[in-house]
Amino acid sequence: MAKKIGVLLAGCGVFDGAEIHEAVLTLLYLDQAGAEVQCMAPDMQQLHVIDHTNQTEMDEKRNVLVESARIARGEIVDLATVKADQLDALIIPGGFGAAKNLSDFAVKGPEATVHPQVQRILDEMADAGKPIGALCIAPATLARALGDRHPEVTIGKDMGTGAAIEKMGAKHVTCAVDDIHVDTQRKIVTTPAYMLGPGIKDVAVGIEKLVRKVVELA
Amino acid sequence: MAKKIGVLLAGCGVFDGAEIHEAVLTLLYLDQAGAEVQCMAPDMQQLHVIDHTNQTEMDEKRNVLVESARIARGEIVDLATVKADQLDALIIPGGFGAAKNLSDFAVKGPEATVHPQVQRILDEMADAGKPIGALCIAPATLARALGDRHPEVTIGKDMGTGAAIEKMGAKHVTCAVDDIHVDTQRKIVTTPAYMLGPGIKDVAVGIEKLVRKVVELA
Repeated sequence: MAKKIGVLLAGCGVFDGAEIHEAVLTLLYLDQAGAEVQCMAPDMQQLHVIDHTNQTEMDEKRNVLVESARIARGEIVDLATVKADQLDALIIPGGFGAAKNLSDFAVKGPEATVHPQVQRILDEMADAGKPIGALCIAPATLARALGDRHPEVTIGKDMGTGAAIEKMGAKHVTCAVDDIHVDTQRKIVTTPAYMLGPGIKDVAVGIEKLVRKVVELA
Repeated sequence: MAKKIGVLLAGCGVFDGAEIHEAVLTLLYLDQAGAEVQCMAPDMQQLHVIDHTNQTEMDEKRNVLVESARIARGEIVDLATVKADQLDALIIPGGFGAAKNLSDFAVKGPEATVHPQVQRILDEMADAGKPIGALCIAPATLARALGDRHPEVTIGKDMGTGAAIEKMGAKHVTCAVDDIHVDTQRKIVTTPAYMLGPGIKDVAVGIEKLVRKVVELA
């Protein structure tokens, strides 16, 4: 029977939502690995809406679940309806949404608050010993949510973000874009993706490795 | 020197813009093929905005160029500023936006009007004998724009759409999702993608073949 892997989205677009390339490549490699995918997102207003042509804020309000549905082609559910016992593993693509909507790490750093439904599903997954994958900046939100379990994660080589992650109780490990870091004890797999880039073919290598490892551990 | 391939986007989301998976996979395979990519989109209001969780129309207005920038991570230009002599080839991903924004084929069928800047760049590319790739429903817009040149295209196996394409002067050829149709005389390469689906791993096969062929012909 196919393993069922959750993909937690945070909107649709690198500057205010889920990073689209990272999310799509996650879906591609999960499908190629024979996994069954369940996309999900919190039903909440985005922190803000960014014009991606010039990175200025737009006078609009958008909903994280509704925008995430664009990446999922409509096949998505409200995170609040998903319990860890329905999943074999969970993957969180990056993009600023992972640190603006799933938590407010992008604004508050180590003092961030995690969205209650994100905190709940991560606690449930960790309590059940089920694997969690996180890409790009998403490991910072993971570190905030699960810091008291002291997970090892990577966001690449950014020393400032690495220090903030360690302040939240996690251990930061440097890692190249074409590689992953595996915390075997806690079954947490992370890759830098667009925290390092530079291009889609580069991030694809690390993301494929992450997906394969998460599916293997599930 | 790297070949420069244009990618013409039509928004961001299968139901009202560019199909996100098709667009991202096009960018992935172009990068893997060593091509230089130039994303572009028309600066125009979308036909409408669709809530992708339930396919209903939202009371919002969005701009095709601004939304396309989400897929391009901000690296995008107004189609009006691009001339064919700056490109070695052009690829148009699918999604309803390719038949709602780039033309109004989704509304008017064979009587569709093509956006003037889309018509211009396609005429320029065809006049220069440069390759054009089109995915999913985008070949219908291509058939409307270049029907008097009688190109051969595929949108898969949908007989109704195939008949509409033939009414516009093109020849429709049936094709499987993991394959491409190549009009060698006119250097037009098409693949059904999500006109057939069913999943991302399936459309990826045809899209990779299309990208390789377009780059080879460029």
